[in-house]
Amino acid sequence: MLDLPPGIERSDDPALLRQKSRDFYWYSPVLKRQLDGKRGDLWVRPRDEDEVLAVLRACRAARVPVTVRGGATGNYGQCVPLAGGVILDTTALTAPLGIVDGVLEAESGAKLIDLDTYARERGWELRLWPSTKRTATIGGFVAGGGAGVGGLSHGTLRERGNLLGVRVATLEETPRLLDLEGDAAAPVNRTYGTTGVITRVRLPLTPAQAWRDVALGFPTLEGALRFASALSFCDGIPKKMIGVMDARLPPFFRGLAEAVPAGQALVLTMVAPSGLVALRDLLREHGGAWLAEQDAVAAERDPDATPYYEYCWNHTTLQVLKKDRTVTYLQCRFPFEGTVEAVLEIAARFPDEVWMHTECVRFGGRTTMSGLPVIRFTTEERLTEIMAGFEAAGCGIANPHVYTIEEGSNYRRVPGDQLGFKRAVDPLGLFNPGKMASFTPG
Amino acid sequence: MLDLPPGIERSDDPALLRQKSRDFYWYSPVLKRQLDGKRGDLWVRPRDEDEVLAVLRACRAARVPVTVRGGATGNYGQCVPLAGGVILDTTALTAPLGIVDGVLEAESGAKLIDLDTYARERGWELRLWPSTKRTATIGGFVAGGGAGVGGLSHGTLRERGNLLGVRVATLEETPRLLDLEGDAAAPVNRTYGTTGVITRVRLPLTPAQAWRDVALGFPTLEGALRFASALSFCDGIPKKMIGVMDARLPPFFRGLAEAVPAGQALVLTMVAPSGLVALRDLLREHGGAWLAEQDAVAAERDPDATPYYEYCWNHTTLQVLKKDRTVTYLQCRFPFEGTVEAVLEIAARFPDEVWMHTECVRFGGRTTMSGLPVIRFTTEERLTEIMAGFEAAGCGIANPHVYTIEEGSNYRRVPGDQLGFKRAVDPLGLFNPGKMASFTPG
Repeated sequence: MLDLPPGIERSDDPALLRQKSRDFYWYSPVLKRQLDGKRGDLWVRPRDEDEVLAVLRACRAARVPVTVRGGATGNYGQCVPLAGGVILDTTALTAPLGIVDGVLEAESGAKLIDLDTYARERGWELRLWPSTKRTATIGGFVAGGGAGVGGLSHGTLRERGNLLGVRVATLEETPRLLDLEGDAAAPVNRTYGTTGVITRVRLPLTPAQAWRDVALGFPTLEGALRFASALSFCDGIPKKMIGVMDARLPPFFRGLAEAVPAGQALVLTMVAPSGLVALRDLLREHGGAWLAEQDAVAAERDPDATPYYEYCWNHTTLQVLKKDRTVTYLQCRFPFEGTVEAVLEIAARFPDEVWMHTECVRFGGRTTMSGLPVIRFTTEERLTEIMAGFEAAGCGIANPHVYTIEEGSNYRRVPGDQLGFKRAVDPLGLFNPGKMASFTPG
Repeated sequence: MLDLPPGIERSDDPALLRQKSRDFYWYSPVLKRQLDGKRGDLWVRPRDEDEVLAVLRACRAARVPVTVRGGATGNYGQCVPLAGGVILDTTALTAPLGIVDGVLEAESGAKLIDLDTYARERGWELRLWPSTKRTATIGGFVAGGGAGVGGLSHGTLRERGNLLGVRVATLEETPRLLDLEGDAAAPVNRTYGTTGVITRVRLPLTPAQAWRDVALGFPTLEGALRFASALSFCDGIPKKMIGVMDARLPPFFRGLAEAVPAGQALVLTMVAPSGLVALRDLLREHGGAWLAEQDAVAAERDPDATPYYEYCWNHTTLQVLKKDRTVTYLQCRFPFEGTVEAVLEIAARFPDEVWMHTECVRFGGRTTMSGLPVIRFTTEERLTEIMAGFEAAGCGIANPHVYTIEEGSNYRRVPGDQLGFKRAVDPLGLFNPGKMASFTPG
């Protein structure tokens, strides 16, 4: 059995283990069927890197699997232990460690909202965050595939320069800490904790500014999409987010639904105050209506308020699921050219089952839209057919109904250096076994 | 004659008039032939808007032309009076008027360097500036067609949202001041003072951060271009500028030449400190060498130092002209797709006469390169042939060897609203006559 030093917080209470073995995988009826009931055997919460290493030494000696858990806000079962073992909870590692030359260093279990607050007090803000910013940890964001709010200006965390460094604890014969900088940190990027326990993260920031949440209404989905696309290419308007929802979605948005006239497609955007004059000019040109606005930073700090990003990205689906458990969703990337046309083609092909929702993003410096449509679920077979329809229209699917790193990627593989890195730091394959499908213990 | 109230600064000294009737048009041997000797009859320098209006009332009454002059750093004779008359010098209107919600308001004769300093003291910086930032005025930048440093992130001043407002004085029957906001300010954008005397400008800012000037060397022009293109699409590296110079240009760069090995193509970039790690990773991938770096903001504030942007944009040609008066230059926009290939095609087509120089920019939210190559000048006919060669390779020429607004534009026309606006505010055609070619006094 596990020879864990005393003093490290732990529990094997069955109710707690059940709770600590889950994330938001239940968005997917497929993952729900596959992952419900999977459980770790022991939950541990180290307070510092020494305790992390002590846990890893014990697990390595006893050949016990280790599944890392942060805020557990992921949607793909990334922190669900498939083979039992230890759940290593990072949420006691919460310290921001400083900002030097616009680069934040923090312990991996710090919540994104707390890090952003810390940064703002020093004149900076996060470049990127998920819609779960108020509950997610920085380590989980890195391990889960950092995309979301800010992606329209900064790309994703996989964009070179958006993740500057990590410290990871290994499961080598003698577990140790490795500091990885720049490109060398790529092997832990979106690997679900299969390549080490991230204990520290270094992220570049962007100078802080105020942001306005603005809700805009359009008579048609096409009108909303064309406006969003034009805005996404408008370099004179600083913005952090542009989401587009078809008219069936806003009624599910508690706190905002009343502001959206029935039948209107909705655009939600976060714009700098200096961009509001031009935003109104662009809106006039596109025949849209200004429905509502609020201070985005004030809203996220108010527990009773909802920042508009909590209606966007993966929160759109959550807002619907709160009232209607019969839906699920998809994730895709629309083509760079003819983006709006591709969205409209999909919408026309599945008029009832696909409730269209897109987010404007940049990949590799080029602007397009990601799709996170809500799907009226019937059967897994039909879900597969719908995904095939998306691919036929030129969309790349990042399948959210699978739990391996490879299957969930646009590319259906892990980069070679990630696999090689895993072989080096986890030769026995004890980190989150089953998630990096192409790895076999050597 | 002109009935000018007393107290307004003025001069009809011939030497002063000669000096105050010129800009940097002499970069072009064609403009030099056409514009040398053109002179105003009276130089006036109003201290405030009341004095501006008094000058305009007198000019309107006497039907005397009015040519507005700022820092006179333009290259197309925009402040050279073709028909004599009054030179209205704005350089006494220098007050910054405040920053509200990230929007700077300033009098039009304020120097860009002074406004940037003012903004930085308050946590902001200019989005865009010309390489003449240390001498140019904000009004001249708007009137001359604001492009340059920052264009890679923010586009040009013509991008919606980058010019938020102006106040202009008219030459209507009773001259008056008009406040124009947002889209309504477009009629004074790049119109060389033909559509009014800009007295105030409102510009959106971006949050201030530090910038590093970095000089990078490459064995070939192609290597430098491929690196620059990759960097320009790299959203994880915040940057204000990327210029590319072929190996013949760096020897002319006083203060930097010694750092560049003979035969190396040069990339000059301004990068945020948080981008330096990723910049080194990218450089390694492209086989370039880190040649030199400096604090960009400190350099521009030191009269004895040269910020790297003073080797870029239209300063590249100036650096060569300081030592070799037999060259001139061109301005073009390379295609969005196949950008590097188009640059290389041009370079191969004119191996001796065209010394390649490009700047990475965004237009309409899409990334490409502008070309400002130095040209070994022989005859005007040959210059025309070279421009035709650029156009044959898919480049849009913004001809710097012409002095009308229309001929100097990619589109060979002024937008309809500019012409209509001029008819309204200057029915007699007294503002800078001859520069808006499609205007006829009605």
